Amino acid sequence: MENFTYFNPTKIIFGKSAEEKAGIETKKYSDRILFHYGGSSIKKTGLYDKVIKLLKDEGIKIFELGGVKPNPRLSLVYEGIKICRDNNINFILAVGGGSVIDSAKAIATGVKYPGDVWELYETKEKQFDDILPVGVILTIPAAGSEASNGSVITKEDGNLKRYYNNENLRPKFAILNPEITFSLPREQTVYGISDILAHCLERYFTQVPNVDLTDRLIEGTIKSLIKNAYLVLENPNSYDVRAEIMWAGTIAHNDLLSTGRIGDWATHDIEHELSGIYDIAHGAGLSVIFPAWMKYVYKNNIQKFAQFAVRVWGSEIYFDDEERVALEGIRKLESFYKDIGLPTRLTDLNIFEDRFEEMAKKCVDRGLIGNFVKLDKNDIVNIYKLAAK
Amino acid sequence: MENFTYFNPTKIIFGKSAEEKAGIETKKYSDRILFHYGGSSIKKTGLYDKVIKLLKDEGIKIFELGGVKPNPRLSLVYEGIKICRDNNINFILAVGGGSVIDSAKAIATGVKYPGDVWELYETKEKQFDDILPVGVILTIPAAGSEASNGSVITKEDGNLKRYYNNENLRPKFAILNPEITFSLPREQTVYGISDILAHCLERYFTQVPNVDLTDRLIEGTIKSLIKNAYLVLENPNSYDVRAEIMWAGTIAHNDLLSTGRIGDWATHDIEHELSGIYDIAHGAGLSVIFPAWMKYVYKNNIQKFAQFAVRVWGSEIYFDDEERVALEGIRKLESFYKDIGLPTRLTDLNIFEDRFEEMAKKCVDRGLIGNFVKLDKNDIVNIYKLAAK
Repeated sequence: MENFTYFNPTKIIFGKSAEEKAGIETKKYSDRILFHYGGSSIKKTGLYDKVIKLLKDEGIKIFELGGVKPNPRLSLVYEGIKICRDNNINFILAVGGGSVIDSAKAIATGVKYPGDVWELYETKEKQFDDILPVGVILTIPAAGSEASNGSVITKEDGNLKRYYNNENLRPKFAILNPEITFSLPREQTVYGISDILAHCLERYFTQVPNVDLTDRLIEGTIKSLIKNAYLVLENPNSYDVRAEIMWAGTIAHNDLLSTGRIGDWATHDIEHELSGIYDIAHGAGLSVIFPAWMKYVYKNNIQKFAQFAVRVWGSEIYFDDEERVALEGIRKLESFYKDIGLPTRLTDLNIFEDRFEEMAKKCVDRGLIGNFVKLDKNDIVNIYKLAAK
Repeated sequence: MENFTYFNPTKIIFGKSAEEKAGIETKKYSDRILFHYGGSSIKKTGLYDKVIKLLKDEGIKIFELGGVKPNPRLSLVYEGIKICRDNNINFILAVGGGSVIDSAKAIATGVKYPGDVWELYETKEKQFDDILPVGVILTIPAAGSEASNGSVITKEDGNLKRYYNNENLRPKFAILNPEITFSLPREQTVYGISDILAHCLERYFTQVPNVDLTDRLIEGTIKSLIKNAYLVLENPNSYDVRAEIMWAGTIAHNDLLSTGRIGDWATHDIEHELSGIYDIAHGAGLSVIFPAWMKYVYKNNIQKFAQFAVRVWGSEIYFDDEERVALEGIRKLESFYKDIGLPTRLTDLNIFEDRFEEMAKKCVDRGLIGNFVKLDKNDIVNIYKLAAK
């Protein structure tokens, strides 16, 4: 086990009608806020009106910035920074999914940053801690950004999708009401599940030995997610099923499951190039890339992959052929993705070979990626090729 | 799943030489502290000298109060409160196990409390939030008090062992170095394991349906603990084994595993009467009471007990006789306790029938106990009798 520091002070308010706390929780931080959101869905469901009223009831002055798109754009971040600076705003309430939260975090970082906030996303070295507090009302369980220390932003010029991590990016509070997710379309639901599962897998496949407890916690999270993935497709309006998925989304990415481990994260990097260029859903890209990555790297720790097969998927153990067990785990993961309607090949997304080299090159522009195995440009091209087959 | 709020801002600093952070972490809160500890063990191991030096290097003025015993006493709490008040102390550093931390929390609560701090432990209704910040250097993985919201104190007059819970009791930081636990005697090690396991079991046995994810997380924690319990007896100086147990101790009781659930806690209440009167180790009392409680209540949810047997202990499933599966889980738990040298009967502790009535009566002096099943005085007597058999 590796040494670690774990500090996650995001207050989680979870349950039916949890959004009713939005006004009083926000008021603890500010009476002058940016209300940040995406498109029309929160207006259709009535969430927008409800939250605006709760904020006004607390006497909070609201400045609005909607229009966040999936794979959130740097240009909107700049706009948000300007609004905050011009109006002395010192708190951002993000109402939406991971894209809205990540956009809010980027704005929160940029307001007091003396340079161009993109510098922090572009280089791995720079850090800036004076970040505005952010609160969240979550509408899509997926990215786990509601309690994470990260933000992912896409710069339109060059289609660069990059992340920035800072402990001060963890939201002050996150309001999670599973009822709000009843109306999520089937596609967004399964893309979310794919993202949550990927956060578990990125942490699971580590070369750090003796991480028994967190192995078990990750396996348990995955098993619960698999069960509820099938159930939610049958019954999208089940509170309990939506609740299991929503809480799994936070647990998978609040870093408790990382304690003492070194996660991999190559698949996320490789996927970011895809969704940066092709503007596909992150979850769709992940279900394509993860099996390909696994096939490319499993020989570097066959026993870990065999453990995954046996413990998560209930595979039979063949002590005389652990590789066969390991491969069965990968196959079962692919079958699961297909079962719930996720793509598993680049061709499913109408993505072909022509830009593999370009994407692989961009992917290593900050150095080799991954930790389970360090990958260079050629490795990444090979993984894209495996994902195409 | 139940609605919940989860907010655990204890900063965990975990790993080799983690105690070296004691000075700088303490300095963030105060330069005038109470250093609270137990007996001579931290002096023997050199931890005392090391921490005192680190604190002095930061220019911190140290007031000392040692002498905390297992089942920490109210009289020492009063002494600590007086020292803090007389010397304008505004931070308490607890160096020890659960007893030292709980004593520190009681002192931290009492310093500004206008009445007798015992009132808060005696009644379930009173709350007082203006609590001094507490920091922890943990030496025994067991109670989970290093990141919990609770404190348990024994009042000598009447041998009353009572708890007080308040969210502000969660320590500001907890320093966990598994190396410090190498020197723990075998007995303290297994009592700690018993306590950690009990914290999992109290949460696991709930009547709240649809708690799939947290069921899995608890099962995973228990499975990891069982594995490492056997290993630590073989190799008490294994860093990785000690690390798994130490981190499990925090995870088991930091309330993440409670999210969306209603835990039982009757076993803790029933055990507190034992250790309050007979001054036995809490962990020893728990391994005696838990199987007895299980035998008394399992018929109220046979499937939950069957799930425990199958998922945690790998029992065979008999769909035509779920009760047999449920009972096998209880038997396997008992066998595990015996395997690692824990008592499973009151006679193992030289406790006999003469005070069952008295203890049961005290146990319900604040009302019925437990949530899986509500227990009255007669139920508790019956559980003591089952524990005697």
